[in-house]
Formats: sequence, C-alpha cells, structure tokens
Amino acid sequence: MHFTLYALEGIWGPNPLKVAFFLEQLGLDYEVKTLAMNSTDKEKGVKGEDYLKICANGRTPTLIDHKNNDFTVWESGAILQYLARKYDPSSQYTGKTLEEQAIVDQWFFFQCTGHSPVQGNLHFSKLYWQDKYHEEAPENVVSRFRDETNRVLSVYEGQLQRQTEKYGEEKAWLVFDHPTVSDFSAMPWLGSLAKFGNKLAIDLTQYPHVFKYVKKYIQLPSVAKVLERLQITYL
Amino acid sequence: MHFTLYALEGIWGPNPLKVAFFLEQLGLDYEVKTLAMNSTDKEKGVKGEDYLKICANGRTPTLIDHKNNDFTVWESGAILQYLARKYDPSSQYTGKTLEEQAIVDQWFFFQCTGHSPVQGNLHFSKLYWQDKYHEEAPENVVSRFRDETNRVLSVYEGQLQRQTEKYGEEKAWLVFDHPTVSDFSAMPWLGSLAKFGNKLAIDLTQYPHVFKYVKKYIQLPSVAKVLERLQITYL
Repeated sequence: MHFTLYALEGIWGPNPLKVAFFLEQLGLDYEVKTLAMNSTDKEKGVKGEDYLKICANGRTPTLIDHKNNDFTVWESGAILQYLARKYDPSSQYTGKTLEEQAIVDQWFFFQCTGHSPVQGNLHFSKLYWQDKYHEEAPENVVSRFRDETNRVLSVYEGQLQRQTEKYGEEKAWLVFDHPTVSDFSAMPWLGSLAKFGNKLAIDLTQYPHVFKYVKKYIQLPSVAKVLERLQITYL
Repeated sequence: MHFTLYALEGIWGPNPLKVAFFLEQLGLDYEVKTLAMNSTDKEKGVKGEDYLKICANGRTPTLIDHKNNDFTVWESGAILQYLARKYDPSSQYTGKTLEEQAIVDQWFFFQCTGHSPVQGNLHFSKLYWQDKYHEEAPENVVSRFRDETNRVLSVYEGQLQRQTEKYGEEKAWLVFDHPTVSDFSAMPWLGSLAKFGNKLAIDLTQYPHVFKYVKKYIQLPSVAKVLERLQITYL
C-alpha cells in the first residue's frame, strides 16, 4: 500500500475528504486508519499518545507516504501541495509558472482560511451547539457565520461566472479550464453546503454557478468513487 | 517602487503585517495604499468597485508587483509563497527539498487555518462584539474560542520546545534553525496575543517558549523596522 490516511471514525470531515478525492484523482493507492473522536486513548484516540507522535496537532487528516521512507505530513493544505509536487510532474494541479501557482494558491488559501473556518463555525452553531451547551446557539452567532458563508459563496459565484464566460460551463473550474488543488479543497465544503443546506438555512440554488459546479464535480470519477465508497450523498 | 501593498486605513490587521514583515526581510521596496474599512466608496472602499476589480474578495492584503507586469495576488498566504518563490532563489524561507517544503507548509497551514481564524474570532468576541451587538458576547462563545486559542498555543509551545532542544533557544524557529514563511505568518498573530492578552484573558507567559519566541522575533531588523514605522508595540 502506498499511503496511510488518517481520518475520524464514523465521520469523514471535509478536510480528510479533500485528501481522499485528490489521491483518487492522482490514481494513488491508500489505506484508511480511523481514530476515535475527542479520545485520549493511547492507541485509538485522535488525542492519544500514539497519534500525537505522528501529528502534534491531534487532528485529522495526516498522510504517511510508505514509498518515501514513511514521510509523514499533516494539515490537508500541506498534504495536497505535497502530493501535487511529488506525484503531478506536469503541475496541472498547481500551475506551471510562478504566476499561475500564485493564482492557484490565492484561491486555495481563500478556501482554507476564508471559507472552511467560517462554514465550520456555521456547522457547529447549527449542528453541534445544542449537544454541547444544551441550548440553541444565540441568533447573532448563527447569523454572523451564515452571513459570512453567504458572502464567501457570492465570491465563488462571481469567479465561476467569469470562468464560465471564459471557458464554458463544462470547463468552469476555479482557476483554469481543469481542476486544481483549489477545486479539490473547495469540493467537500461546497458539497456539505448542498447536503446540510436546509439545516443551515443556506440555499445553494441561489448561487446558480456554484450549484452547477457541485453537480459537475461529483461526476468526476475520482470524487464519485470516494463518495460511493463512503456512502456520502451531497445532492 | 517595486510593490504596492494594500492594507486598511488606520488599522493594520495581522495579515497585511505578515506581508510587510516578509517584504522587509527580503529587502524589497514597497508603497502602502490604504482602504476605508467596511466602505463601498468607489475609489477608497475595501468593498468599492475599484478595489474589487483587483481583489474579488474585498479584503486586505493584496500585492501588486510592478516589476512583474503589475502581477496582482491576494490572500496573505499566497502572497508570501509568491514572494518566496520569486525573490528567494535559495529557498531558505520555504525549504529546499519536497519534504522540507511539506513541513514548512504543514506549520504554515496550521497557522493560517487553525490559528488565525480561531484567534480572530476571540478578538472579535472580546474587542468588537459589544460595538456591533450592544451587549457582551455570550460566555460560551468567548470560552470556545479562548479554549481553542490556548490549545493552539500549547501546540506551538511543544514544537518550540522540541526546536529549542534541537537548535538552542536563539535558533528555535518553527521548522528550521532560521525563520521560514511559517514564522512570518505566525509572528503578527502571536504578537497580538502578547499585546491584547489582558483583554482576551490569554496569558502568554504560561507558554514560556512562545513568549521567548515573541521576544526574539521582534528583534529581527525587518520586523523591528515595520513595528517602529507603524508605532506598534507587542511587548
């Protein structure tokens, strides 16, 4: 087996999914090891002694490359960049020139820093707050993160509209006329919005280019394979 | 002038500061253009028509490279990577091998995705919530982000302790025995914690290696120059 990918037991968060999608896209084999959420169990826990030796941050995903001396790296953003640098010699997923790389990075960091954390907080406030605090999240907490998620969606919508004008609908990816790490980073987060939209009170169909984008990428063979195996349905 | 760097008028957030620190470190000249916060003024506003043509996300920083056909890139993470790739031919700030690059990226993404957004939310809940909502932030909102900021600090503390054991205190940077983009990314955020610690109820001295790290990096000539020019004091 080429790689080991660590994820949480029972629930695949969007960040480990980014890595699974991209490993499939690159045609690379991997086994999955799962860890118990919020657990300090030495062998099984995501906060346990064994896993903390591999990932000092105690979160998933982490990737081990068994064909590179068991080289180990965590943070989904760093993992995607590593995989692209090592296993995509044509640089189609990261850009061929410095300037192309910078624009791929621009949308990649927008996703990782401006999109995921905001949507993650919206998820928490609507899906997990009640369990943790035994009351509903205050309305200004929810609306702050929902408003910002909607703002982020409008930025994607504008970009995908520009890309559609440039390349046509079938080839409208975030940066080029084909997917890059920016797209693989955005996919599971936008998919979750399609899936949990009702509960989050986010209507993805208000962003027609984003909605078409989700319908398009779930048909990529790499993505479809992972979603089918994990029995995840976005739409 | 080599570069134009966009920041907000009157308040330099940590993300534009990352870029200013790193431009100085590379010995590159830049002029600063400031934008009005929350404003849709066509010429002056960060959400105004002129700036949105440059940065579709309507946030700062954005960098224009006048010696590269006015090439324009936004997102502080993407800007640091662009500057390093183009103006650091020795790759000292990003790593010389694929594996070094991956570990620099690992701490870089940890900072940009796991640290900034959490601390940013803590800032908001303690420094801006009252102004926006005319009441104090609910205690579980504050404690959620404060607890996670403390957890992130403990991850830095462990890493800086390991680096101190390996390289000695003077050379204990996040990845190597010299600073990388990961360090320039972490600096203004950890500096803000030193500065606003009282208001945020975060005691940085509880993390002795992190505290020494802040004392060390503010003495880098590049960082000291920016802080002095902007009259910012962290400690």
